[in-house]
Amino acid sequence: MQKKMQIALKEARKAFEAGEVPVGAAIFKDGILIAHAHNRCEKKKDALAHAEMLVITQAQQVLKSSRLTGCELYVTVEPCLMCAGAIIASRISRLVYGIEEPKMGCIYSKMFLYDVIGQHRLEIYGSILAEESKRLMQAFFSNKR
Amino acid sequence: MQKKMQIALKEARKAFEAGEVPVGAAIFKDGILIAHAHNRCEKKKDALAHAEMLVITQAQQVLKSSRLTGCELYVTVEPCLMCAGAIIASRISRLVYGIEEPKMGCIYSKMFLYDVIGQHRLEIYGSILAEESKRLMQAFFSNKR
Repeated sequence: MQKKMQIALKEARKAFEAGEVPVGAAIFKDGILIAHAHNRCEKKKDALAHAEMLVITQAQQVLKSSRLTGCELYVTVEPCLMCAGAIIASRISRLVYGIEEPKMGCIYSKMFLYDVIGQHRLEIYGSILAEESKRLMQAFFSNKR
Repeated sequence: MQKKMQIALKEARKAFEAGEVPVGAAIFKDGILIAHAHNRCEKKKDALAHAEMLVITQAQQVLKSSRLTGCELYVTVEPCLMCAGAIIASRISRLVYGIEEPKMGCIYSKMFLYDVIGQHRLEIYGSILAEESKRLMQAFFSNKR
């Protein structure tokens, strides 16, 4: 899992360098990287342009399908409500995230996603390479202040 | 509210005619219609192309801003988890929806949105012209069977 999360972290660093909240994501199918993206809300002036949304759209285009069954999504930060919903809507099979997000995270922090969707629909792992993701987020928000 | 919901219903009918799940949405700012869209998941082969997502993206483009503060979103069916999150992320001020969606609705049915976000961030009204929206949904799903 660490190796795959490194790809997402590389994307998070790109977001950081572009002045975006440093969140990166990657999707794998059968172990192969099929899509990678980072948060582009500022650049696109689009509150919906979270890393997860962009990477899901990309993966759908690659697979020419709106169903991402069998795909794994790696993201450096716990997804928000919208992204949690997009992960469900696109039928991703496994979610792996880095740090928890106490203010916005809707997998485990602000709400427990399984309470809404039931446990059978998505396999979830958290705290993968969380330290590196945390360092990036802290550096971003301390620059802002 | 009924008059504004009629615009969303007109969009839902377009979705119905295109063979899409009949959900329509419209956004108003200062009482003026600034965006309208319908569900296009089939056409776009995109599980994220719900009416609410498309209409929010459109409104952001019209206002050249990712913050839709002061905007009202009308949608014919109770939003799902993703769309509820997008409504929060784009800072829409008021949500008005038609019928409840017991399987997917994440405003009131599957979960109570205020439990996650707090009541101050969004004004919500449900069951507006619900009968017309229900008729469309029933016609769609009975055609499917």
